[in-house]
Amino acid sequence: MKRLLAHGDMLVWEKDDFTCLKNGYLGIDGDRIDYIGTEAPRDAYDETKDMTGKLLLPGLVNGHTHTGMSLLRGLGSDLPLKEWLFDTVFPVEDRLTDEDLRIGMELSMLEMIASGTTAFTDMYMGAGYTAQSVLDSGMKANLCRPLQSFDPDEAPMACRRMREMLALYDQWHGAGNGRITVDFSIHAEYTCTEKMVRAAAEEAHKRGAGMHIHLSETAAEQQACVDKYGLTPAQWFDKLGAFDGRAYAAHCVWLTPEDRALLKDRGVVAVHCPESNLKLGSGVADVPAMVAEGLTVALGTDGAASNNNLNMLEEIHLAALLHKGVQHDPTLLPLGEVLKMATVHGARLQGRADTGVLAVGKKADIIAVDMDRPHLTPCIDPLSNLLYAAQAADVCMTMADGQILYENGAFLTLDRDRILFEARRAAARLLG
Amino acid sequence: MKRLLAHGDMLVWEKDDFTCLKNGYLGIDGDRIDYIGTEAPRDAYDETKDMTGKLLLPGLVNGHTHTGMSLLRGLGSDLPLKEWLFDTVFPVEDRLTDEDLRIGMELSMLEMIASGTTAFTDMYMGAGYTAQSVLDSGMKANLCRPLQSFDPDEAPMACRRMREMLALYDQWHGAGNGRITVDFSIHAEYTCTEKMVRAAAEEAHKRGAGMHIHLSETAAEQQACVDKYGLTPAQWFDKLGAFDGRAYAAHCVWLTPEDRALLKDRGVVAVHCPESNLKLGSGVADVPAMVAEGLTVALGTDGAASNNNLNMLEEIHLAALLHKGVQHDPTLLPLGEVLKMATVHGARLQGRADTGVLAVGKKADIIAVDMDRPHLTPCIDPLSNLLYAAQAADVCMTMADGQILYENGAFLTLDRDRILFEARRAAARLLG
Repeated sequence: MKRLLAHGDMLVWEKDDFTCLKNGYLGIDGDRIDYIGTEAPRDAYDETKDMTGKLLLPGLVNGHTHTGMSLLRGLGSDLPLKEWLFDTVFPVEDRLTDEDLRIGMELSMLEMIASGTTAFTDMYMGAGYTAQSVLDSGMKANLCRPLQSFDPDEAPMACRRMREMLALYDQWHGAGNGRITVDFSIHAEYTCTEKMVRAAAEEAHKRGAGMHIHLSETAAEQQACVDKYGLTPAQWFDKLGAFDGRAYAAHCVWLTPEDRALLKDRGVVAVHCPESNLKLGSGVADVPAMVAEGLTVALGTDGAASNNNLNMLEEIHLAALLHKGVQHDPTLLPLGEVLKMATVHGARLQGRADTGVLAVGKKADIIAVDMDRPHLTPCIDPLSNLLYAAQAADVCMTMADGQILYENGAFLTLDRDRILFEARRAAARLLG
Repeated sequence: MKRLLAHGDMLVWEKDDFTCLKNGYLGIDGDRIDYIGTEAPRDAYDETKDMTGKLLLPGLVNGHTHTGMSLLRGLGSDLPLKEWLFDTVFPVEDRLTDEDLRIGMELSMLEMIASGTTAFTDMYMGAGYTAQSVLDSGMKANLCRPLQSFDPDEAPMACRRMREMLALYDQWHGAGNGRITVDFSIHAEYTCTEKMVRAAAEEAHKRGAGMHIHLSETAAEQQACVDKYGLTPAQWFDKLGAFDGRAYAAHCVWLTPEDRALLKDRGVVAVHCPESNLKLGSGVADVPAMVAEGLTVALGTDGAASNNNLNMLEEIHLAALLHKGVQHDPTLLPLGEVLKMATVHGARLQGRADTGVLAVGKKADIIAVDMDRPHLTPCIDPLSNLLYAAQAADVCMTMADGQILYENGAFLTLDRDRILFEARRAAARLLG
């Protein structure tokens, strides 16, 4: 692959924090960053890219989503949670074909690429059918086949979802030069038996695979688990071995202080999904406490049906604002902390130690934000403009593993118009 | 002026609510809407505009902002309120020249026009210098010169700000065929004496002018007023006559139930500013209670220094999400209710009964949102896509009084590049 040199402002990683390098140079050799500095490198590069007026930063990591649900965008807005889920979402999901799942995945990737996300963590059915689309897109994804099991007598290998999870791992883990990681997944405490969680955790542990769960999203879920088991969902999952390897838990709205200590102790990454938690009325996770206590917090959009987009800059914006207002303290979650959630902490969740920051030796997962916009002028503090004032459409370039996926509105790996056509046709059929 | 016919989807106003007219026709004669229907009108129009794939809706009304502060965008992020205001914002504001105020106003208008705002309500110094820019831009604005007075012995007409307020009214009220309205303004309870409020209210009443105030933004402000006067800020302003005419109050975060009843009874419009209230740690206004009790609520961005943008679609998005999450009820503030806050209720606040909705006889203040975007596909519910998934950059056309101000990225009334250049230079000087 060719060697590319970019010149512009950039948020580079130094001493475990972001720092803004003005008029810097960033060199890329194939899929890796091989130079960062204030002076032009002596080595020759095949191509120089003038990014003056742009801000380069690491590609955003969406820590929790359900890509297939983008076909259901806007379905049943403003309904009570149960009515939304059982009466509107589930009946449509039952009709989703494998082809629909591929279209939903591609639609989601269009949106994510255009809004600066280079890697995402998906939890949805049909991952065996959609993985090829991820490879084609150039993005990175942690995929899984979420396990559900309600019969306490079911033998683990008699469970179709368990078999699909293992097959998915065998077929796709590590594909695309590691762009695809397959993780294990238990949908949630309330949708799985103890026996099945234990079996899944053992299988994951054997393979060194990650574990993706929903945790403590609603007050009702938290209380029902305590009533049933005498344990919080976090304690229950821990007891069954789900946190023995790399593990991450979406939502974490209703964690107790003891739950937070447990997750920190076990190295579980909490995935904050502020928009979805607000929209469904689930509540506001105590992220400032998590961060103060040293828990690693990543950021996710959840699915488009409860958001209704996959716009990580909006999640960043909201995470930066929400806790200040709810806890009446404007010093909570300062800018760098929130950007870490959307980048380096997401990379940790995904088990991708070579991504998430701009530093020499890391993978070239880089986005550029065009700062020459009225709403980003003046630029007194680039980080403040980026986190509080930018919008997704300000992203003008998205690159993963050194490959440009999107630039100035053009998608270079995915067929935008075909995907939008297919998505509209699929939605019309599903809802017709 | 010429007659223009637009064809596309549109959110029209019927029986006091929005309804989506698919493939409709909207005719404009000069500055007014003269036709809305599902069939093409018989009359001839000079020009037909194919807006297929776009959604037409009324121009957004920003109910509370401080345009001059856009030059301070991003200044002192994440600081405690007092440190932010007294140590960082005030010293820079002291150095603002009249020319800076004009540049800040123009920068703000660029951003507002590009994000679908056609009318705004400003509270800042220098309105006498910036009004001409408003006329040039084609936008509509309610301007004011906010009164502050700390000396209880000061005679009303000895107060420079009072004289400036009256002069502003005399010179600019009604200018631009009514595009400029001059309102009266008392900055806040804690920055004005009883005598001066009473005098300002009397002068406003004589002229039938509106009254723009900050009200109950922080818990400290609310408590200090009760301690000082034995009255809440709302009761204090009411006692002094500030609510005798058209009046509107920004923030309203800490209103008591009695305050809400008082505002409703006096017809005062509350302006919800969710982003600013979160960012400064002020809290979350109980907007669902206000709406349930029949109070009129509009929506505003506040100034860019505490936001950090003037993006009304973001305020809409946040207002639609925030209260559901904080009060744990996904049915609160449904879509139509939030859109009313940003349109027809803003128009009421501004005293512009002929704006805020798409209906025959109303002014042609219209924006178009391009729905042919990955993040707006599929379009199962246009209102849901607009309020939960759209971003400001999806606005592809902005029109006020039948004049197109912005279309497909191009500003037709303001010199974008010159304004951005001037804004950067001014900010560099102010902070240098």
